[in-house]
Amino acid sequence: MRSHGYAPVPFAEVKLSGPFWRGRLDTVLTRTIPSQHAKLEEYGMLESLKLPQPPPPLRIPRNAHGLSTQIFWDSDIGKWIEAASYALAHRRDAAVEAKIDAIVDDFARGQSPDGYLNSWYNGREPDKRWTNLRDNHELYNAGHLLEGAIAYFRATGRRKMLDVMERYVDHIAATFGSRPGQKRGYPGHQEIELALIKLHRLTGDRRRLDLAAYFIDERGREPHYFTEEALARGEDPKDFWAGTYEYNQSHIPVREQKRMVGHAVRGMYMACAMADLALELDDAKLKYACEALWRDVTTAQMYVTAGLGPKESNEGFTEPYDLPNETAYAETCASVALAFWAHRMLHLDLDGGYADVMELALYNGALSGLSREGEHYFYTNPLESRGQHRRWAWHRCPCCTMNVSRLVASIAGYAISTGEDGVAFHLYGGFETNVALAGTKVALSETSDYPWSGAVRIDVDPETPATFDLKLRIPGWAKGATLAVNGERIALAPVAGYATIRRRWRKGDVVTLDLAMPAERLYAHPNVRMDVGRTALRRGPLIYCVEEADNPGGAVQSLTLPRSAPLEAAWREDLLGGAMTLTARAKRLVPEKGAGALYSTEPPAAEDAALVALPYHLWANRAPGSMQVWLAETEG
Amino acid sequence: MRSHGYAPVPFAEVKLSGPFWRGRLDTVLTRTIPSQHAKLEEYGMLESLKLPQPPPPLRIPRNAHGLSTQIFWDSDIGKWIEAASYALAHRRDAAVEAKIDAIVDDFARGQSPDGYLNSWYNGREPDKRWTNLRDNHELYNAGHLLEGAIAYFRATGRRKMLDVMERYVDHIAATFGSRPGQKRGYPGHQEIELALIKLHRLTGDRRRLDLAAYFIDERGREPHYFTEEALARGEDPKDFWAGTYEYNQSHIPVREQKRMVGHAVRGMYMACAMADLALELDDAKLKYACEALWRDVTTAQMYVTAGLGPKESNEGFTEPYDLPNETAYAETCASVALAFWAHRMLHLDLDGGYADVMELALYNGALSGLSREGEHYFYTNPLESRGQHRRWAWHRCPCCTMNVSRLVASIAGYAISTGEDGVAFHLYGGFETNVALAGTKVALSETSDYPWSGAVRIDVDPETPATFDLKLRIPGWAKGATLAVNGERIALAPVAGYATIRRRWRKGDVVTLDLAMPAERLYAHPNVRMDVGRTALRRGPLIYCVEEADNPGGAVQSLTLPRSAPLEAAWREDLLGGAMTLTARAKRLVPEKGAGALYSTEPPAAEDAALVALPYHLWANRAPGSMQVWLAETEG
Repeated sequence: MRSHGYAPVPFAEVKLSGPFWRGRLDTVLTRTIPSQHAKLEEYGMLESLKLPQPPPPLRIPRNAHGLSTQIFWDSDIGKWIEAASYALAHRRDAAVEAKIDAIVDDFARGQSPDGYLNSWYNGREPDKRWTNLRDNHELYNAGHLLEGAIAYFRATGRRKMLDVMERYVDHIAATFGSRPGQKRGYPGHQEIELALIKLHRLTGDRRRLDLAAYFIDERGREPHYFTEEALARGEDPKDFWAGTYEYNQSHIPVREQKRMVGHAVRGMYMACAMADLALELDDAKLKYACEALWRDVTTAQMYVTAGLGPKESNEGFTEPYDLPNETAYAETCASVALAFWAHRMLHLDLDGGYADVMELALYNGALSGLSREGEHYFYTNPLESRGQHRRWAWHRCPCCTMNVSRLVASIAGYAISTGEDGVAFHLYGGFETNVALAGTKVALSETSDYPWSGAVRIDVDPETPATFDLKLRIPGWAKGATLAVNGERIALAPVAGYATIRRRWRKGDVVTLDLAMPAERLYAHPNVRMDVGRTALRRGPLIYCVEEADNPGGAVQSLTLPRSAPLEAAWREDLLGGAMTLTARAKRLVPEKGAGALYSTEPPAAEDAALVALPYHLWANRAPGSMQVWLAETEG
Repeated sequence: MRSHGYAPVPFAEVKLSGPFWRGRLDTVLTRTIPSQHAKLEEYGMLESLKLPQPPPPLRIPRNAHGLSTQIFWDSDIGKWIEAASYALAHRRDAAVEAKIDAIVDDFARGQSPDGYLNSWYNGREPDKRWTNLRDNHELYNAGHLLEGAIAYFRATGRRKMLDVMERYVDHIAATFGSRPGQKRGYPGHQEIELALIKLHRLTGDRRRLDLAAYFIDERGREPHYFTEEALARGEDPKDFWAGTYEYNQSHIPVREQKRMVGHAVRGMYMACAMADLALELDDAKLKYACEALWRDVTTAQMYVTAGLGPKESNEGFTEPYDLPNETAYAETCASVALAFWAHRMLHLDLDGGYADVMELALYNGALSGLSREGEHYFYTNPLESRGQHRRWAWHRCPCCTMNVSRLVASIAGYAISTGEDGVAFHLYGGFETNVALAGTKVALSETSDYPWSGAVRIDVDPETPATFDLKLRIPGWAKGATLAVNGERIALAPVAGYATIRRRWRKGDVVTLDLAMPAERLYAHPNVRMDVGRTALRRGPLIYCVEEADNPGGAVQSLTLPRSAPLEAAWREDLLGGAMTLTARAKRLVPEKGAGALYSTEPPAAEDAALVALPYHLWANRAPGSMQVWLAETEG
């Protein structure tokens, strides 16, 4: 099924030169990743690796910061190692490597002789390992540690952590499966599947792929493992706090799932693994199942920001078109994982629709999780606020912090793919690489001020002249685009969202792509009841919002935007490192003078107002205040 | 402070002849109250009065219906006795009286020798009484039992329950207070204050009033009783689950409270007691405190339906103008209690503004809690639904069921007041009474089809000619009204919402009041961010909603109402016993044909549609479906 045969160029082989992502990357490398290590230390998470630890009465102690420890910190540490390793790929750093090595030593010391490795269970409840896959995240932890080990090995060549994790994976493979004497379990929180596939891709060990496939295919089978496991613990399976196995997508086998349900991050990781396995195993039925879930998510359950999961109680999905704005959960991790999934779908079918969603998630729902200065975070990403939402410096469950840092640190890996006969650009914004293609080496340099501008230049420099496809994504939002090679206009005939230029390329060839990037209004499907009569603003890949800091005079929810008001783009050099704002004439509803009745038979008076919108991912970086993505639109 | 000197004519002295409330009353008498007794029996609540009961390990058993028992059922039983007694005032019924007597016998048997009476504590944890006033509702229970006892005594003259409760009140008065050796406690859930004032009014025993005043004035004083009490239980007061004493309005002394906070029903009961005490004790400062809270509630925290309390977690208030529609908590009990409070405020100042809110609550937020057939209920009263809200036959906490039945069974008590020199009509809809006034007996008969029509006729028949004021409320919603005596038009010069006719009345005098009752649009204060660009429909005292049953073709949220569309009132004899509907030409947003993108740069197409709205209190009596009060309005 490697039908189109394109595979991503790894981020370490792509140089990021454009100002947008280069700026973010620098922040993540210099501030986010170091400060995350400091937080892991400050909150006792690194200390908890030093085994043994006090037994379970200390299970949920409050630390000095009023935060509770929890049972799955291994995963956070694994994710930090992964993010830090991506940083090392940009620039080696002996001090960081020493920190990682110290953590690896702790993990190695804590590993059981049989290979089992979990700081919580080994430290506090060694006799209870593998008794609650449903809730207690052992396999999830293993997955993130394994991803960290792979990344660290790739960045440095050091294999101690990889060896530790391979031993652990051997133990897991011996413990779980359908052979006699094995537990027929699978993770309550999907993740390890992705890590096992990465391990297979690193080592070529087919057993890793088989274990991932087992976990995916066993999921939701009857008799239900989580039911049996609860009974074995002496619990009534009906007492499962989440109420339904839809919560972790084990209500039915994954290939039968047509609707994305339950916890959003679990669902996204599962979908990533399904897409990976569909590719690796050339499994058309699994691909078909991915496509059904994709359609459901993107046509009925996704916020305009690419946020996923409206509800707090299950951190996840509810029902089609249920997309409340102020109470949106829209966990950062879910949008990060949506980008992961979209990237995988794109490598099943080179279809720009997947790249559109990937880009939407990267620039909006995922990036909004990280503050401009790089040390504050959002766990949830609402589309409306009355000012109660604040970025936090650390979280009881800091999963999102390292998800966004590992994403930004490897962002260049989402930009370019190569196939036997061509190269494809999915993203723009300053990406340079050298690839082997058509029997020669080709230097590719994409230069642009994307996402602020749609003017893209690509220098194609093969060592020797060579014929191959250059595929350029034409984003779904781009209503007009022009393409030229060496200044000569050529017809733009995109197929599935990609314009293909096949020619004999020579050193010095220059391709220019001009994507018209007007500010636009978006309207939601009328079934999205909360957005009826409302419009959202978009320019290029960026969704905009209106924030009180730029619109003083009361809550932004009292602003209304006439349908006829033109939207103007205006560059603001002084705004949060420079940003393109959108402005429009608008109205502000104003209360009556005096007491102000709560209800009146007269519509509120409206004053002229100048509306200023900024990219959604930049919100909540200034003084607290109200914010809104979906603006009330009037017909005037 | 009995400044205007008007006092309510008790409901038992008012005959209800109009079709609207008479129909509701008949349903409550024949169906609601009997079925509530059956539910109390079916769910084991009556059985729980037979002491002793098993000790606390059985504290939260699930019964056969999957419901959990709880600790404050005495209150529900007290409230049922109160409602049933109001029914008896309409028509004595030996079978019902036997049921009440059986319950009273159980309570009498369960009472401790020292007078203490609580089925939970006496039955299961006798050594723990009075150890957790904050959470465990002992005084709240006592209040409702006392109100039941008073009502039963008034209806039947039987005093066994009253005697039991007087002994209990003596015990409470001995236990709580500021004398040495007494506990300086007060209820975590206000209610007993109201009951004590009723008892004072029945017996004239001043000590009852003093105890109510003590409870109100002790509330929120430092050192804080609930803090001391938690420490005495060995608990950290900071672990209070609600997080703040605002929850039960004990964060500061009540006279200092300017904003209504916390649990809505507690707040309303407290405000009722404050108003009662202001009247009884002629306490201007307490009246002033009531007025501040009233302004806050009615100008910043009240739904257009008179629902109160947007939030589920505290069943209560959040912040000014925070009035989400679909997730509105708006507990039935809170609107019932708002009607109670408004009625009390009206007797501090004869101001139609209080009567307007009382009427709004009666016809909308309170009445919506009871189904048309009389045996299903709403605990929460949202202003928007996607069809997920269903009336239930019974509830784990059935407080609302008996609150609405006791209200309807005594509804005539809210209609008329008399003073030394006059009579005032607050409500219309068919109320007849005989009062002693100006040295004679006056028969008064108000006839109307209110709330469906604003044409009101009042026959005034004094036995002998007499001069007195006839005060007629001119509702705030009535923009036009005409008044005539014996067919002769007289000037309508309402003062504070009441038109006063002072004349020498003779047998056969007829007053006609014609309140113009056009359908109108309401707009919320622009700070109510969820209602920007929306309008609600009102006709007379009724708030309307749009329900899917009358508007087939998809969720009603996709309907938009042009501002220019006239609203027509249309009587529908077949609709839920007959109701005035409102109709208007509207638009329905329709999805694109085919797949239907979730977001589009094109506004959704709009088809012509005929919108039908019905009174809010009638919603959810037919097939489940979407509902909306605040309709998206377009400027067309």
